[in-house]
Amino acid sequence: VIDCVGGATTMELYEQLTAQGDKVRSLKTAKADKADVDAAIQLLLKLKVDYKEVTGQDYKAGCPPSGTAVSNDRQSENGGEEDTVDPWNVATNSAKGVDYDKLIVRFGSSKIDQELVDRIEKVSGQKPHRFLRRGIFFSHRDMNQVLDAYEKQKSFYLYTGRGPSSQAMHVGHLIPFVFTKWLQDVFDIPLVIQLTDDEKYLWKDLSLEDCHRFAEENAKDIIACGFDVNKTFIFSDLDYMGSSPEFYRNVVKVQKHVTFNQVKGIFGFSDSDCIGKISFPAIQAAPAFSSSFPQIFKGRKDVQCLIPCAIDQDPYFRMTRDVAPRIGYPKPALLHSTFFPALQGAQTKMSASDANSSIFLTDTPKQIKNKVNKHAFSGGKDTIEEHREQGGNPDIDVAFMYLTFFMEDDEQLEKIRQDYTSGILLTGELKKMLIETLQPMITAHQENRKNVTDEMVKQFMTPRPLNFNF
Amino acid sequence: VIDCVGGATTMELYEQLTAQGDKVRSLKTAKADKADVDAAIQLLLKLKVDYKEVTGQDYKAGCPPSGTAVSNDRQSENGGEEDTVDPWNVATNSAKGVDYDKLIVRFGSSKIDQELVDRIEKVSGQKPHRFLRRGIFFSHRDMNQVLDAYEKQKSFYLYTGRGPSSQAMHVGHLIPFVFTKWLQDVFDIPLVIQLTDDEKYLWKDLSLEDCHRFAEENAKDIIACGFDVNKTFIFSDLDYMGSSPEFYRNVVKVQKHVTFNQVKGIFGFSDSDCIGKISFPAIQAAPAFSSSFPQIFKGRKDVQCLIPCAIDQDPYFRMTRDVAPRIGYPKPALLHSTFFPALQGAQTKMSASDANSSIFLTDTPKQIKNKVNKHAFSGGKDTIEEHREQGGNPDIDVAFMYLTFFMEDDEQLEKIRQDYTSGILLTGELKKMLIETLQPMITAHQENRKNVTDEMVKQFMTPRPLNFNF
Repeated sequence: VIDCVGGATTMELYEQLTAQGDKVRSLKTAKADKADVDAAIQLLLKLKVDYKEVTGQDYKAGCPPSGTAVSNDRQSENGGEEDTVDPWNVATNSAKGVDYDKLIVRFGSSKIDQELVDRIEKVSGQKPHRFLRRGIFFSHRDMNQVLDAYEKQKSFYLYTGRGPSSQAMHVGHLIPFVFTKWLQDVFDIPLVIQLTDDEKYLWKDLSLEDCHRFAEENAKDIIACGFDVNKTFIFSDLDYMGSSPEFYRNVVKVQKHVTFNQVKGIFGFSDSDCIGKISFPAIQAAPAFSSSFPQIFKGRKDVQCLIPCAIDQDPYFRMTRDVAPRIGYPKPALLHSTFFPALQGAQTKMSASDANSSIFLTDTPKQIKNKVNKHAFSGGKDTIEEHREQGGNPDIDVAFMYLTFFMEDDEQLEKIRQDYTSGILLTGELKKMLIETLQPMITAHQENRKNVTDEMVKQFMTPRPLNFNF
Repeated sequence: VIDCVGGATTMELYEQLTAQGDKVRSLKTAKADKADVDAAIQLLLKLKVDYKEVTGQDYKAGCPPSGTAVSNDRQSENGGEEDTVDPWNVATNSAKGVDYDKLIVRFGSSKIDQELVDRIEKVSGQKPHRFLRRGIFFSHRDMNQVLDAYEKQKSFYLYTGRGPSSQAMHVGHLIPFVFTKWLQDVFDIPLVIQLTDDEKYLWKDLSLEDCHRFAEENAKDIIACGFDVNKTFIFSDLDYMGSSPEFYRNVVKVQKHVTFNQVKGIFGFSDSDCIGKISFPAIQAAPAFSSSFPQIFKGRKDVQCLIPCAIDQDPYFRMTRDVAPRIGYPKPALLHSTFFPALQGAQTKMSASDANSSIFLTDTPKQIKNKVNKHAFSGGKDTIEEHREQGGNPDIDVAFMYLTFFMEDDEQLEKIRQDYTSGILLTGELKKMLIETLQPMITAHQENRKNVTDEMVKQFMTPRPLNFNF
């Protein structure tokens, strides 16, 4: 049993953690300086990560570590390697997926805790989205600042995006859009969606024409999520760069304030990378500044931006936040989501070219059924007898993970978790529940997409004022 | 006396050169393969450079080297350093200026010889411009190919540009525009002029607004050269990038096909340069492809481009020519000019911030007179007596150099050269001739510029069809 780290026993760590938790609470109650509270929380999170590394278990207030804790710290679990998370690679050796608490510490972001979820509920007046309730959007930067301003009638806008590398989108691709739509609905704010067809051309062996066509096809799936054309601007980089001098001006401003050394450090570019890749980060940064959209914000350059995205996109926006004050713009705030797992398990990579790695938005009910039954990695036991006796492990079960993304009812989900863990619920039954959740969802999406005309795509993608007064 | 290089005596070199000259002539007479002729010319030029290095004198057919040749090879003349020539630096230690023959060999371009000048005369049906007659445009790439095609009724277009780093332009800045106007007049072809305001923002401590304003101010001076609005499109990068998706598409295509290693080699960029500089060369490359201007070329991507520019811009276009075939476009052809010397002499740098380093387009007749008399470096002797006896040196005399740029009459210029060399003409008299040439020229330019309205600038800078059918 490894029970000390840097000289601290697990019990000492536990006590430190408990004390730090108390400190955070008292600072918050005393309405202390935001910076002090943030620092206290950072230390708390750091201690939690240490605790988990040492004990192999999450810290739980009121539950001191047992002397028999198994040594399964992440280091050994991962073969000594850290999770890899950048815009092009997500890799972990853990069946539970990436260690997100650790990522928060590494990236220097903040955890979306219950208090923040409660605050979003209070400010928006709406029940928090299941992605917030379940920690799927788990990390943020400056979300409290956005809410502070919103409470003072200062509006903000949403920015999210997608790299259109193929026509095929899977259910995981919808996560940021489903959540963004909810944010737009509850806060009633403008939304810009960037389709980085230029990026895909630079990174993939594809023609410009293909990348642009994929952008328009993907736009249909995005529109099918139900966005309001009066509040949403979708743009292809290849088109918008060539139709907005203000956008290009912001791109050049960012490009002047970021060196090759910096992008090398942030993105791992090398000397043999093409100059297009090297300068691309500025193009993903520019939509985070409201002056890139004068048609929407009437030339205002101080409208705060909030970016909901998967955490692998954070490097782009760390860079953006670093540059922002130097070119006279507010830093964008962020809401980070976890990754959507591949059917084969959270440690395998989903691939648009492997039809069996996920549920695609074009799958038929039969395909959905077959894929889930055949390919969804199970946390159940090998035989029914064993399963009944020992129960399944929902933490590594892909069918259960997918249900946490798509099943709305919290109580039903919790009952499934308990029944699966206890062995009452069998793998086949769990998979059936997922199939019955996915089939109508995908069918409805397909119906919606069928109703998206080329004319509608054109409307969404035309630079124009939206129904907001700035 | 250094009289051998690689084992060859100066006389052997002289004989080799004479033989090679004969070979080139006979290949041309026999209408041999272009590649063979080019190779023979390359070798000829190489030999000429070697000859000059060894003897300190230009090779002259029929004049064998004298046994008393002084050892003033360029190596020692330049303190062992080569001339520096790139888009941001031009430096030489020779009072005669950069060694252009050597540059042709180093850059791998071709010399504009008498035969090519004659051919341009034949094809255009016009007396060659004094810049051609006097070797001011001295080097080219693929000009024969342009003429071949033109003779077969295949048109081409002209592309030149300027970096608007300040409002102040001097007479030297007009050289490419004066020559380009002549080319446009004699060939009757479209012209695009790029104002790289984005580049100046990236390189200088200037705001975007300033750079853009300088672009518009410089456009007035360019228009004042007499360009035809029906045949000429002037554009600011900051504006045109944001108004032409086709232009951005070509920029991205180039950016995909050039690595950081390449721009490091070509332009000397380092890891601490901003990513804007690193990717900028693609923006100067894109106008060399006709598909960047669909409004002019009706979407045609095969119209040959000819770029008249100072030779320091060649690195951009070597890169462009390298990329062109890989993205399915014809390589642009080039015509290179020598540099316009500073008043203080060919080895000093002209600077827009030093009002005395050149004649500015805003100078009054009195300022012109004072500057030439006070600052123009003289190749004359210290006293009138000495000068009368020994004569002046026109090769290092800035007043004489300026006259080669601006005096139209060949016979008059040759007489001045002879009289100055022999001592008949004194420095003061020579300077007076220059003053009397410059004063009416600058006054006329100022008159023309005064007549350029903001409305005209807008017209020239609006993307639109020109009066040509493609």
